[in-house]
Amino acid sequence: MAASASTRGLGVAVIGAGMAGKAHMAAYRTAATLYEPVLPPIRLVSVGDVSPAFGEAAATRYGFERNDTDWRAIADDPSINVVSVVIANRFHREVVEGLLAAGKHVLCEKPLSDTLDDARAMATAAHEASTIARVGFTYRRSPGIAYIRDLVRSGTLGRVLHFSGRYWCDYAADPRTPLSWRFQGPAGSGALADVGSHLSYLAEFVCGDIRSVSGGRFATVIDERPEPLGMVSGRGATAVSDTLGRVENDDYATFSAAFDEGVGAFEVSRVATGHANTLTFEVFGDAGSASFDFRRPAEVGLYLAEGPAAQRGFRQVILGPDHPYLAGGLAMDAQGVGFGQNEGFVFQARAFLEEVAGLPEEASLPRCATFDEGVHNMELLAAVASSAEAGGATVTVGDVAATKNEEVPA
Amino acid sequence: MAASASTRGLGVAVIGAGMAGKAHMAAYRTAATLYEPVLPPIRLVSVGDVSPAFGEAAATRYGFERNDTDWRAIADDPSINVVSVVIANRFHREVVEGLLAAGKHVLCEKPLSDTLDDARAMATAAHEASTIARVGFTYRRSPGIAYIRDLVRSGTLGRVLHFSGRYWCDYAADPRTPLSWRFQGPAGSGALADVGSHLSYLAEFVCGDIRSVSGGRFATVIDERPEPLGMVSGRGATAVSDTLGRVENDDYATFSAAFDEGVGAFEVSRVATGHANTLTFEVFGDAGSASFDFRRPAEVGLYLAEGPAAQRGFRQVILGPDHPYLAGGLAMDAQGVGFGQNEGFVFQARAFLEEVAGLPEEASLPRCATFDEGVHNMELLAAVASSAEAGGATVTVGDVAATKNEEVPA
Amino acid sequence: MAASASTRGLGVAVIGAGMAGKAHMAAYRTAATLYEPVLPPIRLVSVGDVSPAFGEAAATRYGFERNDTDWRAIADDPSINVVSVVIANRFHREVVEGLLAAGKHVLCEKPLSDTLDDARAMATAAHEASTIARVGFTYRRSPGIAYIRDLVRSGTLGRVLHFSGRYWCDYAADPRTPLSWRFQGPAGSGALADVGSHLSYLAEFVCGDIRSVSGGRFATVIDERPEPLGMVSGRGATAVSDTLGRVENDDYATFSAAFDEGVGAFEVSRVATGHANTLTFEVFGDAGSASFDFRRPAEVGLYLAEGPAAQRGFRQVILGPDHPYLAGGLAMDAQGVGFGQNEGFVFQARAFLEEVAGLPEEASLPRCATFDEGVHNMELLAAVASSAEAGGATVTVGDVAATKNEEVPA
Amino acid sequence: MAASASTRGLGVAVIGAGMAGKAHMAAYRTAATLYEPVLPPIRLVSVGDVSPAFGEAAATRYGFERNDTDWRAIADDPSINVVSVVIANRFHREVVEGLLAAGKHVLCEKPLSDTLDDARAMATAAHEASTIARVGFTYRRSPGIAYIRDLVRSGTLGRVLHFSGRYWCDYAADPRTPLSWRFQGPAGSGALADVGSHLSYLAEFVCGDIRSVSGGRFATVIDERPEPLGMVSGRGATAVSDTLGRVENDDYATFSAAFDEGVGAFEVSRVATGHANTLTFEVFGDAGSASFDFRRPAEVGLYLAEGPAAQRGFRQVILGPDHPYLAGGLAMDAQGVGFGQNEGFVFQARAFLEEVAGLPEEASLPRCATFDEGVHNMELLAAVASSAEAGGATVTVGDVAATKNEEVPA
Repeated sequence: MAASASTRGLGVAVIGAGMAGKAHMAAYRTAATLYEPVLPPIRLVSVGDVSPAFGEAAATRYGFERNDTDWRAIADDPSINVVSVVIANRFHREVVEGLLAAGKHVLCEKPLSDTLDDARAMATAAHEASTIARVGFTYRRSPGIAYIRDLVRSGTLGRVLHFSGRYWCDYAADPRTPLSWRFQGPAGSGALADVGSHLSYLAEFVCGDIRSVSGGRFATVIDERPEPLGMVSGRGATAVSDTLGRVENDDYATFSAAFDEGVGAFEVSRVATGHANTLTFEVFGDAGSASFDFRRPAEVGLYLAEGPAAQRGFRQVILGPDHPYLAGGLAMDAQGVGFGQNEGFVFQARAFLEEVAGLPEEASLPRCATFDEGVHNMELLAAVASSAEAGGATVTVGDVAATKNEEVPA
Repeated sequence: MAASASTRGLGVAVIGAGMAGKAHMAAYRTAATLYEPVLPPIRLVSVGDVSPAFGEAAATRYGFERNDTDWRAIADDPSINVVSVVIANRFHREVVEGLLAAGKHVLCEKPLSDTLDDARAMATAAHEASTIARVGFTYRRSPGIAYIRDLVRSGTLGRVLHFSGRYWCDYAADPRTPLSWRFQGPAGSGALADVGSHLSYLAEFVCGDIRSVSGGRFATVIDERPEPLGMVSGRGATAVSDTLGRVENDDYATFSAAFDEGVGAFEVSRVATGHANTLTFEVFGDAGSASFDFRRPAEVGLYLAEGPAAQRGFRQVILGPDHPYLAGGLAMDAQGVGFGQNEGFVFQARAFLEEVAGLPEEASLPRCATFDEGVHNMELLAAVASSAEAGGATVTVGDVAATKNEEVPA
Repeated sequence: MAASASTRGLGVAVIGAGMAGKAHMAAYRTAATLYEPVLPPIRLVSVGDVSPAFGEAAATRYGFERNDTDWRAIADDPSINVVSVVIANRFHREVVEGLLAAGKHVLCEKPLSDTLDDARAMATAAHEASTIARVGFTYRRSPGIAYIRDLVRSGTLGRVLHFSGRYWCDYAADPRTPLSWRFQGPAGSGALADVGSHLSYLAEFVCGDIRSVSGGRFATVIDERPEPLGMVSGRGATAVSDTLGRVENDDYATFSAAFDEGVGAFEVSRVATGHANTLTFEVFGDAGSASFDFRRPAEVGLYLAEGPAAQRGFRQVILGPDHPYLAGGLAMDAQGVGFGQNEGFVFQARAFLEEVAGLPEEASLPRCATFDEGVHNMELLAAVASSAEAGGATVTVGDVAATKNEEVPA
Repeated sequence: MAASASTRGLGVAVIGAGMAGKAHMAAYRTAATLYEPVLPPIRLVSVGDVSPAFGEAAATRYGFERNDTDWRAIADDPSINVVSVVIANRFHREVVEGLLAAGKHVLCEKPLSDTLDDARAMATAAHEASTIARVGFTYRRSPGIAYIRDLVRSGTLGRVLHFSGRYWCDYAADPRTPLSWRFQGPAGSGALADVGSHLSYLAEFVCGDIRSVSGGRFATVIDERPEPLGMVSGRGATAVSDTLGRVENDDYATFSAAFDEGVGAFEVSRVATGHANTLTFEVFGDAGSASFDFRRPAEVGLYLAEGPAAQRGFRQVILGPDHPYLAGGLAMDAQGVGFGQNEGFVFQARAFLEEVAGLPEEASLPRCATFDEGVHNMELLAAVASSAEAGGATVTVGDVAATKNEEVPA
């Protein structure tokens, strides 16, 4: 399939015209301009969205040939090879399975689904499919995070001792923010699912697999919110009613983890006043440490326990062509020119298209995450929820039923 | 006692001539020069240390009249009113009880003792004493931390939603750091007791009482270290042997907590490569947030959810005479002149002497922590250890036997 | 012309396939996807470069239909309406005048030329042309810089008192960096022309016009460098010879300036070890101040002299949809997603295309700088050189012959 | 003299009971407690101040035996050996000369005087005196600044290429701040004399001597201020009248300089809104760079052009016992405990007392600056004023009459 595509070029569709969907569209448009021009031609074919107005506007804006209101029109179009699925999590399974059955390569936004059962089913479907199914953990595409992973893998930091990560958002910090789907669902479907999935994914990306979690704790610190009047938009300026309704899921979550090597602790919040989107983490090894703050994506903190003691200190490493992704990547790839999350989507689209086109993995970018990795990430979050339900007990990842207290690894 | 002292002046002794003891000595010497000169005259009488050489050197350096090798000589000296106890935790009880029995006012370094039983006994002794017994949590004397407490109490941050704190040290990050008493003792006697006591104390100082803890986890990430050859000094340059011995206690600890209002998570480490002494924390309220980094003690991060959205951001508040402790305190008390932990000991000594001298609490500085608070802090850490032993289960503070899983407050 | 173009779409060419040229190419490719899709269709027609290999590679990479080795082929192509000129400064005049004469809209990279005479001639040609001629000062497209300009213009900072700006690079900090064209030419053609042009332009963009300069000083701190062996590439890994040659122009330059309102000082360097590309500046008003650091393009420092003294401090404003350029601009336009200099080129291309297409100025982005502004910037730099030649005397901008000492405005 | 003093101890007086005077008093009180106890006993004898109330309060607060309202009482007291002079600059000459004539060791606050003639006369008097005369440039006592000086001297940064320094204050940024003596006097007596003296002194302390200055520019950006009603206190809360009066001297000053090696630029302001006391500077060498921000006195930025390019970056060096002044200095001397400007005064008093006591220079701290250095610093500032008067021309330091334009060193 990939081979035939590469002669004719690759036809691309994106299903879902929200903000993240647009980021996928923009990324496919730009992906071919990175690195050596080894990709086959890219045709931007269709934007799928149930709203014809939204779909058409996005298609026009990003240069797609048409829009479809039913995903089946995309599945049925033989000129489309590659599809991003960027819709509500609970619809992922149906659409992704349909696309795989129709022989499409699928890049599904994270998390794979809203239930672990569906996610596992999707992974099974991916294994059975002849095409490529990947899940979009864009944060691994942040050059700083990839650089820290390299520092760990190369042994520059020595043996990893512990990890500390936080993801702070404040979209729900104002108690007057009205109720919406975000505030409904079981414990763990709030801040943990929303941003904890990113944080936990990249922790494993950087430090290796997590075996068990402990100390799961959820908190709904603002437990009632006004009912909305009218539709709730992204930035929530909608009028609210005087009636208060119940918030069901987690504003805040924390847990700790035992990695294959080392331990770590995690905190996430959607009520962290002052933080629109602050992901920070540190990795501590016995030969060095590294830190990252997503507000400053073009820099990494690096400490090396070497050289004269009087000259040691955390280094503000400004990312450039000596670091992952950048050399020959962006048009301006010099040190100090900056970049952001939009570029992360471009790197991701590029990586996916390289794999679809059958290019060797060494071409330029490492592959996207598999559905198995997506399931693993959901199992990790399920283990956190299970730990929280058991008052903080230790739970082995992948063994969600096991909510008994177990030995904590020292 | 205090009244008679204030006419004759206050005779001061410090027991323990290590680094923290010296900080107490220097502080008593300077304490009278802060604020209005309301203190009675201070006489620096004796330095107590089992080593006559160390004791004499310190007495000479800090201008104390003499040194004693037995604490009883201090207890027996009627010219001494005020005694700081800055010796190994396991000796606290005997010395403090003896001093209280002899009618001395006692400022005991934290933690009160190495066992909760001893600490509780000391609190009982303090209640029964006619003199003042206080415990030295110097970190509450950091002007930035006091300022954040004021922000919380005044409602400037709104309702507190969650707290996040970390205390990173790296004195044990090098696997070749030899074994010493620091690495011996039960789980919880390592990093948790050492720096977790500071962090948890100030968390409650800022945010109010912690009711229960959950998710206790200890990790000994470097589980063997070389046996030392010869005496281990503070900075550990001693030669080490080829023999490896077992590290017994925690290099790293984490837990979460339910405050009376809000929740929080804590991490501490003595193997956090690159961090000699980094205490950082954030407090999130629904009207604002504050952050602190002990490496930069003269500044506080402050976010207020007010004013035009386009102009909001964390403010780097440089502490000065508009903030706690500084106005009329240090000789140079202007904004931007900086200060550090030595000043914290001076503020603490001043506060203790004001109370001993019978000055009204409004004089200049809030009182030092009571032994009951010292016990509470140890109970909190004991609850963490109990939680860890139970694989992360929730434990009510003060109820160390209760290691069963309980409901986690949402 | 623009009107007819907007029905047929706009044909675009970029002359010069170096790094900045590629940034223009990538930008034209993306420009249509910003904001509402109001632009006419963009056709990417030709990449001009004297090297057929470079030109073809760039055309393929960025999706241009062809490449040309002679700029006249672009001038002669009636399907091309819009041309970016991104070649060595000394060739700007010939090419730009030729393109204008051929009826093309021209976006010329800064500085307009290597001589003031040529730049003035180009401005005259621009006035006589029926098409649009603009100069590419991309730094005005940095959302943070545009935001600070808005703070000044809206009076948020009060009356502007002084400006302080520095542009540090270190591409020449290593004494073994070989000689190249960068090190040849008159005083002022080194660091001042290279990065001082950016810095001085944005100072006026933010704070208004500079009337006179003073204290011009150039320094060639590394006055001999090895002759290169073979071609010198961008990152200069070429082998060098044992022969040393003379550096002719400025490694470092400084000057001060009198604005219409307020004063300021400037420093630039190409030997600022540790700074790949660090532009920082502060603007001080009597009601507030702002600061910017190009290494962290997505944030601005803002101080407002309002509210309780104890709560004031520089705010780390994280840029987002409440700030210039971003709302509805990038696909991911949320606060905290980051962006960099590549996006600056896209904003610039968009602004230029909007003007060419005859869209009203309010469409989305302010216009690009005119050639008159480009001449003014060169006159400013010439005045600095003149001041330096006169040992630091005051020189009125635009009056380069006047090197006599004049009154310094207080 | 010193020898006899060291047997009897040293009697100390401080003339001037303002904030800086108090810093001297506190410093003499503490100086003996630093490092090994090698100092002779210190007797705190007298505080001199024309106000008996202020003098007595300060004497009581800092433990001096008495206060005097006439400096001659101090000069005449044979039990006093050491005197700090911390009064208005225009009275320095009379008092210092009187004290030297009376055989006192004198530590005079910077600047030596308000006129160069007086300063030169004082230096002559110092040369003729049998006692020690020193000037108090406390900023050289900042451990971070001393560390950067060491980096330069040891060659760690390579050859110094350029220096960049700024000193921002905002005590005059509010246009309603009333007139006072600070705003009167010739150009150069404002911000330049106030904080420019510190900045220029430390530039030479770190980078070596300045030969000539250029580009002097003064600006009085707020040229009228309200007349005060009643006395103006330090923090200026006094009521003001409706009448505006003229500001005579400089709110802002800038200049550049040619060092023996390298060049540099300087900016100072008293109207830098948002900066209570911000001194920042960078030193660029061809092997590394260093930076300092007085708001964070316990850290230094250090960049070394060594090791893998991907791992380079400015290091946040946290000062501790591996750096100047701290090991064995402060009671708490560990890395990360912080310190501030008050400690700078203590280090200075200690250094002065060591010299007075005849201890070898290697004892612990380098000597204080001589009066010749104090004159040199004033000559430097006079050269800046001369340059400004001449519209920015180059002026050789020490040759204030030479206001002709000279060749600028490249």
